[in-house]
Amino acid sequence: MLIVQKFGGTSVANPERIKNVASRVAAYRAKGSHVVVVVSAMSGVTDNLIKMAAQLMPLPNEREMDMLLATGEQTTIALTAIALHALNVPAVSLTGPQAGITTDGVHTKAKIKNITPRQVRSLLDEGKVVIVAGFQGQTDQGQITTLGRGGSDLTAIALAAALKADLCQIYTDVDGVYTADPRVVPGARKLAEISYDEMLELAGLGAKVMQSRSVEFAKKFGVPFEVRSSLNDNPGTLVKEETRSMEGVVIRGVSLDENQAKITLVQVPDQPGVAARIFKAIADASINVDMIVQNISHAPNAPSTDLSFTVDKPDLLKASKIIDALRKDIGAREMIADEKIGKLSMVGVGMRSHPGVAAKMFETLAGAGINIQMISTSEIKISVVVDIAKGKEAMRLMHKAFLENP
Amino acid sequence: MLIVQKFGGTSVANPERIKNVASRVAAYRAKGSHVVVVVSAMSGVTDNLIKMAAQLMPLPNEREMDMLLATGEQTTIALTAIALHALNVPAVSLTGPQAGITTDGVHTKAKIKNITPRQVRSLLDEGKVVIVAGFQGQTDQGQITTLGRGGSDLTAIALAAALKADLCQIYTDVDGVYTADPRVVPGARKLAEISYDEMLELAGLGAKVMQSRSVEFAKKFGVPFEVRSSLNDNPGTLVKEETRSMEGVVIRGVSLDENQAKITLVQVPDQPGVAARIFKAIADASINVDMIVQNISHAPNAPSTDLSFTVDKPDLLKASKIIDALRKDIGAREMIADEKIGKLSMVGVGMRSHPGVAAKMFETLAGAGINIQMISTSEIKISVVVDIAKGKEAMRLMHKAFLENP
Repeated sequence: MLIVQKFGGTSVANPERIKNVASRVAAYRAKGSHVVVVVSAMSGVTDNLIKMAAQLMPLPNEREMDMLLATGEQTTIALTAIALHALNVPAVSLTGPQAGITTDGVHTKAKIKNITPRQVRSLLDEGKVVIVAGFQGQTDQGQITTLGRGGSDLTAIALAAALKADLCQIYTDVDGVYTADPRVVPGARKLAEISYDEMLELAGLGAKVMQSRSVEFAKKFGVPFEVRSSLNDNPGTLVKEETRSMEGVVIRGVSLDENQAKITLVQVPDQPGVAARIFKAIADASINVDMIVQNISHAPNAPSTDLSFTVDKPDLLKASKIIDALRKDIGAREMIADEKIGKLSMVGVGMRSHPGVAAKMFETLAGAGINIQMISTSEIKISVVVDIAKGKEAMRLMHKAFLENP
Repeated sequence: MLIVQKFGGTSVANPERIKNVASRVAAYRAKGSHVVVVVSAMSGVTDNLIKMAAQLMPLPNEREMDMLLATGEQTTIALTAIALHALNVPAVSLTGPQAGITTDGVHTKAKIKNITPRQVRSLLDEGKVVIVAGFQGQTDQGQITTLGRGGSDLTAIALAAALKADLCQIYTDVDGVYTADPRVVPGARKLAEISYDEMLELAGLGAKVMQSRSVEFAKKFGVPFEVRSSLNDNPGTLVKEETRSMEGVVIRGVSLDENQAKITLVQVPDQPGVAARIFKAIADASINVDMIVQNISHAPNAPSTDLSFTVDKPDLLKASKIIDALRKDIGAREMIADEKIGKLSMVGVGMRSHPGVAAKMFETLAGAGINIQMISTSEIKISVVVDIAKGKEAMRLMHKAFLENP
């Protein structure tokens, strides 16, 4: 049995916590598993390095930032190996480059191109625990690179794929993936399992247990992984390929994203190319658009439409300036910006085989007097935008209707 | 013109000081020089890493210590490159391994085997300042190693040799090499130049500007280097091959080592193998012996001798226990341990061609009523052991006699 275990920055924040990580690793090894450990930088270390660089220059060179930040994980791997030695567990640390992680040359957000874990494998064969620095790799030319946000998760999942590990465990400060945010929904339950696609939809929806790219990578290479807490021994949530039995559950989880804002252009002339102009201008400003909804034309003689879309709340001001500048040019009557919205989403692969989910959702919301401002659906997700003041109530209603008394 | 400049930990202790280093480098570059910069870890960083490792285990594995400590210099090179960018100077950082520094596999005190500075050279050709992490390298198998104490000086000198640099500058917190410690001898002067051999004798004698191994390396490969201060623009001391003109100066400098202690074995039977037994026992305990003096036998019928030697003061207790245990076995009458000694040395290549130096030294000391307890000489050095209470006075007398009114 080969396990890859990944521990984030808070789990290795100081020597005391590194000892806890070592004990956990030692326990798995004592049960006969081969273990590869992936660790992040001790929490605070990366921020401190960034701060020092910022004292020298506002926008430091990205190649040098990679050189700088890669030291954070290198420090942790050495300390983790030493902590394992203290428990009489043979262990060897490897930097990302030493572990054979090759990336493209896009510094600070490199993509993994290839993993040749020759050295990892031979150390495992010698009976060693192998500790690999997360978040980093090197180019074919030997330049040190980092993988960007969520990079250590990615290292763990990519290594699990390359080593054909039996299991990959992502240790974090939450117990697993829940049916809803337990702080808001008292009846929320931890999920025993969830499909990659469901996890992806939830990850993209404000339930930020993991970055989407790591889940996508796991899906692409068929790596099952478990999200669990480094603070206790509770089983976590297994994220894996969709199975037939999963379809029995209509809705896997409910999430609420209160960090979006809505822009509506009223009476946009219904002509080809207008939407393209609008969203090109937004994209050129590096603003991400999430939901887009366009209503039908009002009048057949002067065809026009209302166009609404959502952006991240911090981008609202920038986006509304761009749109307002375009408005006259396009011939739209009015622009309305609204940051008091919540985006409520329900996710479940079972939705595909259970019609009537949307109807029941809209009915339930209407019954509670909650107005739906926008609707957007995918095969396994329904999202609606509501007044932010009603968001939490709407989430509790949905959870009750679909997950507590389905 | 190609210069290698090395800056130690105090010169790069924080972002503000790194900016100063960058300004100095930029000034040399503006004058048309190609510059390679070698930096140490920011002062305090290495100690902090060692402290964290010690919290995990009393004697951490040396391979992992190298993995850990190598992060210190890697942090500095990235920050130094960024500081140069802030001055619009193109600069690229390289780890020891990236700079082509190959070592043997003796972790924490590796020896440089080979340097292939291909990447350094091509970056210099592109007009870049190249910043290399001191103190580190890698084995042929890609294991990260560190060079031990004084390792960054060694990196600088070895790189200067491999690149056939025109000059190597070692920036430190002293102005250069002095004829004597200026805090003790008011008339002490900074030396404009000194030969490798003289520098080696002084380095080995408590005038610890640099570790002997770096000077030995420089001598072996004929690399002239300048020791100078990073706090001002004063010219420093040039350390180089001995020239004929150097012989005109009889004594280059005087030093006093107050950190030694003396052990005397009284009436040791004068038999073959006795000295070997004594010094093997001392060596087995990893205690360094410096001076050894053996007096002539007292009586032809029962030939015996007095044997004295010096060790570092912190080793005195350990050494005297070993010797006392051996004493009866050997048949020596008594052991005397004395930590109240000072070792006064005079160094100069001119000594070889100027007879009478020792005589004048002994005469001067005798004239001041200072008793000589031990004498040891090499071709370019005379050392005497005196009462520690008389050490500083003796040093001032010697300096006056040989360096102020020669």
